[in-house]
Amino acid sequence: MRIGVLGTGMVGQTIAGRLSELGDDVMVGTRDPDATLRREEPDAMGNPPFRAWQEQHPEVKLGTFAEAAAHSEALVNATAGGASIDALGQAGAANLAGKLLLDVANALDFSHGMPPSLLVANTDSLGEQIQRAFPDARVVKALNTMTAAVMVHPDAVAGGDHHVFVCGNDPGAKAQATELLTRFGWRNITDLGDITAARATEMVLPIWLRLMGALQTPMFNFKVVT
Amino acid sequence: MRIGVLGTGMVGQTIAGRLSELGDDVMVGTRDPDATLRREEPDAMGNPPFRAWQEQHPEVKLGTFAEAAAHSEALVNATAGGASIDALGQAGAANLAGKLLLDVANALDFSHGMPPSLLVANTDSLGEQIQRAFPDARVVKALNTMTAAVMVHPDAVAGGDHHVFVCGNDPGAKAQATELLTRFGWRNITDLGDITAARATEMVLPIWLRLMGALQTPMFNFKVVT
Repeated sequence: MRIGVLGTGMVGQTIAGRLSELGDDVMVGTRDPDATLRREEPDAMGNPPFRAWQEQHPEVKLGTFAEAAAHSEALVNATAGGASIDALGQAGAANLAGKLLLDVANALDFSHGMPPSLLVANTDSLGEQIQRAFPDARVVKALNTMTAAVMVHPDAVAGGDHHVFVCGNDPGAKAQATELLTRFGWRNITDLGDITAARATEMVLPIWLRLMGALQTPMFNFKVVT
Repeated sequence: MRIGVLGTGMVGQTIAGRLSELGDDVMVGTRDPDATLRREEPDAMGNPPFRAWQEQHPEVKLGTFAEAAAHSEALVNATAGGASIDALGQAGAANLAGKLLLDVANALDFSHGMPPSLLVANTDSLGEQIQRAFPDARVVKALNTMTAAVMVHPDAVAGGDHHVFVCGNDPGAKAQATELLTRFGWRNITDLGDITAARATEMVLPIWLRLMGALQTPMFNFKVVT
């Protein structure tokens, strides 16, 4: 399947690499591909520059947001949440129309200090903002409640016995997202309803961040037990 | 131990009953004890009126917020979150001073429809509001991420193998809260830091509410797996 992954950071790299490993035809989208490839410093989190990653993944293409979106049958939004609407605008509404747009982003707000708060919360969410801005895209929010390595390799934590949540307005897109999650190895996939449930999953971030501090590792997840 | 439980709803009843069963000397606090005892209708959730519950728990005293606070060495805030600051004001700052105040409340906002949103979120929390309003109380936020029956009987879900979170500014109060939780049967108690972490645990409510809808039961909890 032709999949566009928007965002060249750690999350975009991790998802693009995994999809490619699973046999998909992947193009990563970025604002300015030349600038992305020229960057030689690690990012703010200490991750190596994109070029170093791409040398390990020569089969993954790099293009503009619009090229990656035009290339693809389905898209993953792995841009920073605060920049997602702009990035998707550059991708182009026409290139998103009718396609699954798997939104894994969180809109973190560092302006109030650490740990970050959310740029949107409680009565709205990034997932809803994206669906409103691009009504013809089939937005599914998922995977935003864990670290990138766990998103694509759930078995890296507790043998994979923990949960991922999906929500969105389009049942077909949710089924497609669920199939993709299953290919990543997810067994416990809980449908929380329409895209307004993105408020709920995005508001998991604050406790996720506190737990990362308490556990001193991002390699954990939530299991819903009954 | 003499414990005051503020709030006569389902959460207050459940916690008061359990503490009493464990041997504590419990007084439930309410705005107007006569009015509480006169009420004959079930509450909005269909729970029986307080009087019916008290007939089953004759050893639990009922008093005003101030009487319950004055009676006690430690307090539990089980009032509705939107009314908590006012209820604690009636309890009286002097009656709270130096005591553990275990805040289990969530400030739900039904004005935006169902499921409810939060009255305070993201860059502040009810737990912090309470600590600011009553600086001499030793506020610990805990137990607000699950249904009342699970709060006091963690073994009712998955053999008790799941998590409760505590946070607060006073290490001694957190130790006291942890001991109380241990008496309830909690084995996995995670300290998330100071009272600002109440933002994180209060923001769990939205996903808890969505999961209750998806699972069709409130008898579940989160286990943090690594």
